[in-house]
Amino acid sequence: MDSNGDVDFHFDFSSPYGYLGSELVEGLAARHGRRVRWRPMLLGVVFKSTGAVPLTSVPVKGDYSRRDFARSARFHGVPFAMPSRFPIPTQAAARIVLWQRDRGSDPAPVVHALYRAYFRDGRDISSPDVAADVAAESGLARAEARAAVDDAAVKEALKRENDAALAAGVFGSPFVFVGGEPFWGVDRFEQVERWLARGGF
Amino acid sequence: MDSNGDVDFHFDFSSPYGYLGSELVEGLAARHGRRVRWRPMLLGVVFKSTGAVPLTSVPVKGDYSRRDFARSARFHGVPFAMPSRFPIPTQAAARIVLWQRDRGSDPAPVVHALYRAYFRDGRDISSPDVAADVAAESGLARAEARAAVDDAAVKEALKRENDAALAAGVFGSPFVFVGGEPFWGVDRFEQVERWLARGGF
Repeated sequence: MDSNGDVDFHFDFSSPYGYLGSELVEGLAARHGRRVRWRPMLLGVVFKSTGAVPLTSVPVKGDYSRRDFARSARFHGVPFAMPSRFPIPTQAAARIVLWQRDRGSDPAPVVHALYRAYFRDGRDISSPDVAADVAAESGLARAEARAAVDDAAVKEALKRENDAALAAGVFGSPFVFVGGEPFWGVDRFEQVERWLARGGF
Repeated sequence: MDSNGDVDFHFDFSSPYGYLGSELVEGLAARHGRRVRWRPMLLGVVFKSTGAVPLTSVPVKGDYSRRDFARSARFHGVPFAMPSRFPIPTQAAARIVLWQRDRGSDPAPVVHALYRAYFRDGRDISSPDVAADVAAESGLARAEARAAVDDAAVKEALKRENDAALAAGVFGSPFVFVGGEPFWGVDRFEQVERWLARGGF
């Protein structure tokens, strides 16, 4: 998925492990002279390829996963509070990120602002108005961010991201590619780190 | 699941990540003055609790998982060759381990012998005769090991292990408990290590 040595980071804004990954991936990439390419997608779309359902709705595994979200956050030193509404639709947040990215601006600040709004502050970023508020707090023009959510070209960009993720074999979040090598989950970041250091192993 | 400070290691002999875990867990436990309690189980039984299916039979995810088995083995420095027959029934191997354990002998040598026979040498340990051969190569009496596979009391012991795993919330392999805290997957061993070092985090 990467054509330029960047670390491709596919994620859904409703994914707790995606959030943890978003807090760690830039440091990881930077240690090896790489940049992150932020690739928001909709897990609901890619879940169809595997028949998966949201983790927390799986019997037994759902209880464990809630415990593991919080424990993994503590392990990595990332502030985390499970939102009361979960999972949520994430089109609005994803479109704001793609609008930023595809006009040539660095989307990292708004990625972090949106993820933290949801997984630290419990704000419902599925609402286009809330997502635009958060974008504005991160320094973007609120009206433009709000308009991007309903912009046909931006909607199309998100469809392309979903299609690209599916075509690349993405089935979860976060999902990282380094030089074509796929890594699923924040718990593969150690392997990503070694892969970046050695060019494979 | 542990009542004595040991590290409870629940596993299925057909689980590649269980095999990787089996090669790492003793070192991990020993670094913190703990011992491993080997708890073979049947994933087919615990999968019923979550509706899970074998990883390799899931579309898209199956291809990734085969790549990840081999890469994770290289990452951890563990010899690994994907068996041509996979997954397999593992009652025979599990019963031999329980027969050893429950008569007060250390099952570790036969656990390693059986796992390596399957995931290094591609031997079909689902066959009671092959499993007994492997047990004999690890130093056990072949005839006794073979008889254990069909022993009613040993069969009952395996049922109890499965029931205990289900009751504890086990839904995958490997599954580790430390002081009641559940950890799923060899990719949680770093967290297990910190938990053992600090008594929680």
